[in-house]
Amino acid sequence: MKTYKALEKQFRRISAVNGALAVLGWDQSTMMPEGGARARAEQVATLSVLRHDWITDPKLGDQLNLAASDAKALDDWQRANLREMQRQWRHATALNPRLVEARTKAAMACEMVWRKARRDDDFKSFAKAFKPVLELTREVAAAKSAAFGLGTYDALLDEYEPGGRSASIDKLFADLAGFLPDFIDRALVKQARRPDPLPLLGPFPTETQREVGLKFMKVLGFDFSHGRLDVSAHPFSGGVPDDVRITTRYAEDDFTKALMGILHETGHALYELGLPRAWRDQPVGEARGMVLHESQSLLIEMQVCRGAEFLTYATPLLRKAFKGSGEAWSEANMQGIYARVKPDLIRVDADEVTYPAHVMLRYRLEQAMLNDDLPIAELPAAWNDGMQTLLGVDVPDDRNGCMQDIHWPSGAIGYFPTYTLGAMSAAQLFAAAKAQDAAILPGIAKGNFKPLLKWLRANVHGKGALLTTDELLREATGKPLGTAAFKAHLKARYLN
Amino acid sequence: MKTYKALEKQFRRISAVNGALAVLGWDQSTMMPEGGARARAEQVATLSVLRHDWITDPKLGDQLNLAASDAKALDDWQRANLREMQRQWRHATALNPRLVEARTKAAMACEMVWRKARRDDDFKSFAKAFKPVLELTREVAAAKSAAFGLGTYDALLDEYEPGGRSASIDKLFADLAGFLPDFIDRALVKQARRPDPLPLLGPFPTETQREVGLKFMKVLGFDFSHGRLDVSAHPFSGGVPDDVRITTRYAEDDFTKALMGILHETGHALYELGLPRAWRDQPVGEARGMVLHESQSLLIEMQVCRGAEFLTYATPLLRKAFKGSGEAWSEANMQGIYARVKPDLIRVDADEVTYPAHVMLRYRLEQAMLNDDLPIAELPAAWNDGMQTLLGVDVPDDRNGCMQDIHWPSGAIGYFPTYTLGAMSAAQLFAAAKAQDAAILPGIAKGNFKPLLKWLRANVHGKGALLTTDELLREATGKPLGTAAFKAHLKARYLN
Repeated sequence: MKTYKALEKQFRRISAVNGALAVLGWDQSTMMPEGGARARAEQVATLSVLRHDWITDPKLGDQLNLAASDAKALDDWQRANLREMQRQWRHATALNPRLVEARTKAAMACEMVWRKARRDDDFKSFAKAFKPVLELTREVAAAKSAAFGLGTYDALLDEYEPGGRSASIDKLFADLAGFLPDFIDRALVKQARRPDPLPLLGPFPTETQREVGLKFMKVLGFDFSHGRLDVSAHPFSGGVPDDVRITTRYAEDDFTKALMGILHETGHALYELGLPRAWRDQPVGEARGMVLHESQSLLIEMQVCRGAEFLTYATPLLRKAFKGSGEAWSEANMQGIYARVKPDLIRVDADEVTYPAHVMLRYRLEQAMLNDDLPIAELPAAWNDGMQTLLGVDVPDDRNGCMQDIHWPSGAIGYFPTYTLGAMSAAQLFAAAKAQDAAILPGIAKGNFKPLLKWLRANVHGKGALLTTDELLREATGKPLGTAAFKAHLKARYLN
Repeated sequence: MKTYKALEKQFRRISAVNGALAVLGWDQSTMMPEGGARARAEQVATLSVLRHDWITDPKLGDQLNLAASDAKALDDWQRANLREMQRQWRHATALNPRLVEARTKAAMACEMVWRKARRDDDFKSFAKAFKPVLELTREVAAAKSAAFGLGTYDALLDEYEPGGRSASIDKLFADLAGFLPDFIDRALVKQARRPDPLPLLGPFPTETQREVGLKFMKVLGFDFSHGRLDVSAHPFSGGVPDDVRITTRYAEDDFTKALMGILHETGHALYELGLPRAWRDQPVGEARGMVLHESQSLLIEMQVCRGAEFLTYATPLLRKAFKGSGEAWSEANMQGIYARVKPDLIRVDADEVTYPAHVMLRYRLEQAMLNDDLPIAELPAAWNDGMQTLLGVDVPDDRNGCMQDIHWPSGAIGYFPTYTLGAMSAAQLFAAAKAQDAAILPGIAKGNFKPLLKWLRANVHGKGALLTTDELLREATGKPLGTAAFKAHLKARYLN
């Protein structure tokens, strides 16, 4: 127990450095003038190296072993905390520092090249900068594969989704792949037979959009004594659980995207804000992984806020705030706007029906690249084929094709599947919540989100990293993760 | 040379942690929601302990000695850098960690009590919380006195003003004390014989005040690709030289204070922004000390921006921005507003004529308390006597008397004299600048601050910590710090 307590102290220090890095990262995206970049890079590099040194300290490894040999003295949370400490230690020590540094540098260089290459639609330049990133990512995968006894792809996936395995993803995605193409066609036909939604005509002042966003954040349960809303080029949720900072970007001619963006990030934020207070600053007090994190943003955005009940509550408020009138501002039209299906090029703009196709394509291609089954030079052709097969979309150029995302240039292979696993988890969790508390849905229609938040706190947020994702889903929904709830949700929203 | 280079590397790491702490501190005062305080305290404490561990590492001491034995191989800047490294090491290692921690805790506790006690005018509660702070500060002074071979007060002063000594301050203050009482009387008589300045009637929208402030910052030479202006309860200049962040607070019924506050902080910021680029992240690249720092804010505020030339340039712009008209918005009236003399209770609101009296009182009393010549219980009486003698002001209560400042509760003894030494330095530097470049004054009247900034960059900012304050003043002005320029400035502004 003494060793375990010493470990808690050491991980509290690591958590403080993580927190400092989170604030520095938020500041960099929201507040920092461009000339601050050099100094900020020094600060972030120094703290990152420090954190790595602390977490790979051989003494820490000895303490972890000693504490594990005495794990009977620990309660469930402490034991889970020790398990999470071991997990962090394993991931950090699996790589030698030279490899970590080489990969970080290659990814930073590739990101720079990628920004320009994407703008110029210059795949060749991108490919050249991406080559060392892919090679070093393979080295990382090989090292972690050897250390964890996992396949190379799973070894990478495990970093984003602890316990995530491609064998189960393959099954889930195969199921979805059998369902979606036909479903997309049916949804498109159904949609084509209805009149198109009327456009909402602006301008919509940024300040009003912000006020509306803040109002909805508040009613959803965002605690402004523990967080903020700001602006950044790419919306994100950052900060620490005591001080969660979300961002959006506004366009004066269309409020609908910024608003839904705020609600999406609010879902992430509610997860962080609801993490177990008693375990702040400890590994077990952190979010479980990216699947559950995405599930929380998508539960709020896709399950709740694009749904009929939320729009019943929200439409009159939006109409009033933006001084709208006429048929375009009716509930039905708002639902039409927020449930459009459109097979298209860009993942981040995709609707929830076509989104899985974007993910499944990337999942297949990144595995192929990792396994050396797909040379980088052949990526554009493979991408364009895939988009044609999966969504019937012609890809006009690589900037709107295989160069659109930051993930690969930054060395993040194994991340993409968490988006769709998150969407499926969101559907399954929301279905269970509604079944377990009949007050949730009528509450949403009246702007009362307390029953929903209470359920999420008890079943997801408050669990931190106590359970695996799979255990948590079983406890909360009675079932392992499946496709049924997601399919049922899509049918209900797009075919009825 | 190899050892010296290794030291540079280590101090670059220390500088990165300092920078991270500066950003975290800025965020805490400007952006952080109140609920973020606990997590932020953990982050700051962890990084502060880390910095202390790094800077007191015995290996670092060995390296410093080794590098000093080979100092002939170094150039002037490197030698000065080594000297500043040694200085930081000496200050850090003079205290044992237990004393550092005890003093930090006592000061934090006392600050909390002080906030409430000041509000409630409760000197007894304050005195009780201040007692341990004073005792621990005495211990600090004794330890540093022994380590540096300095008197106890000088040992504390040296932390804020490297090389500052009370023997020379005593002489300068004695000179001023002989001059000021009579001068204040004459200035008051002169002022009483003129009509009072007409009031400027608002409201003055915060957004307009901010825009005006940004405009003046820009023309003064503030580079917004390396800094920001924000709002905080207590204005300050923070961040790092590549990314300087100043703050102000606005009142809609009076723009004159917020504006002058912005200009004051801009003076601090220009110093930081102008520190030598080649020595970023090294001790010799930092600001010399608090005397020169205060000199730069006061040079911009008191010497330049409250002067006739600046107001010739600024008045029409202010009139236009705030849509002012009539006699109240004349240059002469603006000068009257910005050069009022009023012996009063509060230091931070004091004009430049009466300000030194506030400082001299505190300088005398803090020495007496440190030397155990003044029991804390007798502080209010001594304070009130002093205010009566020095400024003829009756102190109605302790909240507007000896409890007004945060310095003593936070354990900062030895800081106060730097304000008045800074004011004197500002006058001496500005007189020299004007004498050396005849374009400076006419430039200011036309809104061209380039000649002034060029002189300050070359003679002050760009020197970093290469020279001692005394050396820098001699090189820039041909004389050691004296009272002559300050007196001449006061006479010119308040008796003509």
